[in-house]
Amino acid sequence: MRVSSIHPVILCGGGGTRLWPVSRKVSPKPFLPLVGEETLFQQAVRRVAGDDRFAPPMVVAGADHAAVITAQLGDCPGARLVIEPAARNTAPAIALAAALLPADAVMLVCPSDHHIADPDAFRAAALAAAALAREDWLVSFGIAADRPETGYGYLQRGAPLPGGFAIRRFVEKPDLARAAEYLASGDYSWNGGIFAFRAGHLLAELAAYRPEMARLIGEAVAEGAWEAARFHPAPAAFAAIAGESVDYAVMENTTRAAMVPADMGWSDIGNWAALAEALSGAADAAGNIAQGAADLIDCRNVLVRSDGPRISAVGLEDVCIIVSGSEVLVTTRQGAQAVGQLPGAVNQ
Amino acid sequence: MRVSSIHPVILCGGGGTRLWPVSRKVSPKPFLPLVGEETLFQQAVRRVAGDDRFAPPMVVAGADHAAVITAQLGDCPGARLVIEPAARNTAPAIALAAALLPADAVMLVCPSDHHIADPDAFRAAALAAAALAREDWLVSFGIAADRPETGYGYLQRGAPLPGGFAIRRFVEKPDLARAAEYLASGDYSWNGGIFAFRAGHLLAELAAYRPEMARLIGEAVAEGAWEAARFHPAPAAFAAIAGESVDYAVMENTTRAAMVPADMGWSDIGNWAALAEALSGAADAAGNIAQGAADLIDCRNVLVRSDGPRISAVGLEDVCIIVSGSEVLVTTRQGAQAVGQLPGAVNQ
Repeated sequence: MRVSSIHPVILCGGGGTRLWPVSRKVSPKPFLPLVGEETLFQQAVRRVAGDDRFAPPMVVAGADHAAVITAQLGDCPGARLVIEPAARNTAPAIALAAALLPADAVMLVCPSDHHIADPDAFRAAALAAAALAREDWLVSFGIAADRPETGYGYLQRGAPLPGGFAIRRFVEKPDLARAAEYLASGDYSWNGGIFAFRAGHLLAELAAYRPEMARLIGEAVAEGAWEAARFHPAPAAFAAIAGESVDYAVMENTTRAAMVPADMGWSDIGNWAALAEALSGAADAAGNIAQGAADLIDCRNVLVRSDGPRISAVGLEDVCIIVSGSEVLVTTRQGAQAVGQLPGAVNQ
Repeated sequence: MRVSSIHPVILCGGGGTRLWPVSRKVSPKPFLPLVGEETLFQQAVRRVAGDDRFAPPMVVAGADHAAVITAQLGDCPGARLVIEPAARNTAPAIALAAALLPADAVMLVCPSDHHIADPDAFRAAALAAAALAREDWLVSFGIAADRPETGYGYLQRGAPLPGGFAIRRFVEKPDLARAAEYLASGDYSWNGGIFAFRAGHLLAELAAYRPEMARLIGEAVAEGAWEAARFHPAPAAFAAIAGESVDYAVMENTTRAAMVPADMGWSDIGNWAALAEALSGAADAAGNIAQGAADLIDCRNVLVRSDGPRISAVGLEDVCIIVSGSEVLVTTRQGAQAVGQLPGAVNQ
């Protein structure tokens, strides 16, 4: 490993209910093969594997998922697993990893519930972000926006920097009119939750803006313990942290926020319509995509996915049909965001 | 039983593929509880039960269905079962029953794969039809048409008769423009396959127009055998008959064809859209109907039916979702007619 390697920190929090009934509490989104044969988590690992510009990954996850992570990592020399004693959002998870890395290491924070169609573009953006992070910028990937999405936060570009831009402003999820303005201006990118920091710098900024969190992280690490390649932070100290995203805790406060543009076929696969979109390259001439046994007549832009039973469909357009265990879900693409409100998704 | 009783003859042929995956070769449409808790067959029996104007039923069916018929008849004193050695369409099935009844008995031929919402109206029409049959009319029920249906044959009314009309003309399934004309004229009814004949008269007319069929029916009955309440026609003679509908074999040839108007909420439940229509009285305010566990968000006019798995749906309109065994079917109401073309329906 070169001293200047980039240290991938792979976050396995979250999961969400909008990919129910396939994504469930017991097998959440990162650990499912949604696009292709590998799971999203495996793809996140693979994107930075076999390339000596990247160190082996540090994975941060809850204890519930340690077994599936170990199984899905397979033979991954040097990989380490940090087990969160409780779910406290991204700032504590990232700070834990930062405290376990050398202060001068550049960390690349990668959520594991996203799909990236173009890994080369991802790695190019990671190198640009790492270069800025070495200069003590806190760097967010600015995902190229291709629609007026109201479900994401936006980053507004400021002064140009080598390989990126200072961030002028963070914008919370906008309404549709504002999202359309942002898209038209060309000045905004989506905040995809992918970051590069120098580990010591991230901790210093955290200490400035969230001193109590920084103190508790220090305690959790000092009193924590390695068990082979697994690190267990001290549970009491970690659990005492007030959970917060790294955006709120650090990025929106610092004067050193930067972004690198990343046009890499990114999708958060936030619901079944988004999965259909991410799989559109595999669609047939009518736009239909089948994962599992399916017979379609007179259908357009239909996604079917079954873990067993055959799905037969007639006359549908822009619909997703999902069969998993003893649950059958049928949703329009437009309605996909409401899947999380279904009793089956809520009462897992 | 009064001498003048009407003898119900319940036909259990057919089945069809358009209610797949619920209706299958092993459990076809008549024997399924599609509307309400009783099966269509049980409803056909019930419509003429407990009313001494009607004799106990004679059921005509294939050997494959003898067991289910016996089970579904339950305690039905006097019921008899005629077992067809082969499927030969309606003319031979009806002629078999006619040959087993007294020549002066009025037979009421009832398919068992239809739904009739208003049994009182059915019985009133049956009495009117029986009165005409006693005068040696061959009587078809003329179902009140309420839409320009292209899937049925039509009957055109001729001269008025007591309680009905002579039939001026039989019309094969028309195109949409012609069906619309028929509907507008008020002069046409649907041919629903429900008939009343004097048994001896039906056989005489059959002998006139299809002498070979009449001869073979006579032979199948003469050489057949009763086994308790089951009659087994002679297989060789029956199998030698060229199958034909009673419409082709007799009704379209006779000079004594009559019809009685019947406005009785009739449906042949020909596909899932037709079932949704027949169940519309049980729909919620949004027009949705659930048979089995279902959670719907933002759906309108959706029919869901499951034999086990929960069905969850979002944003759909005019769609039927059917789960049966290891098959999941999702069809628009408009596409319901094409369900029979699905591989699952074809390759049973």
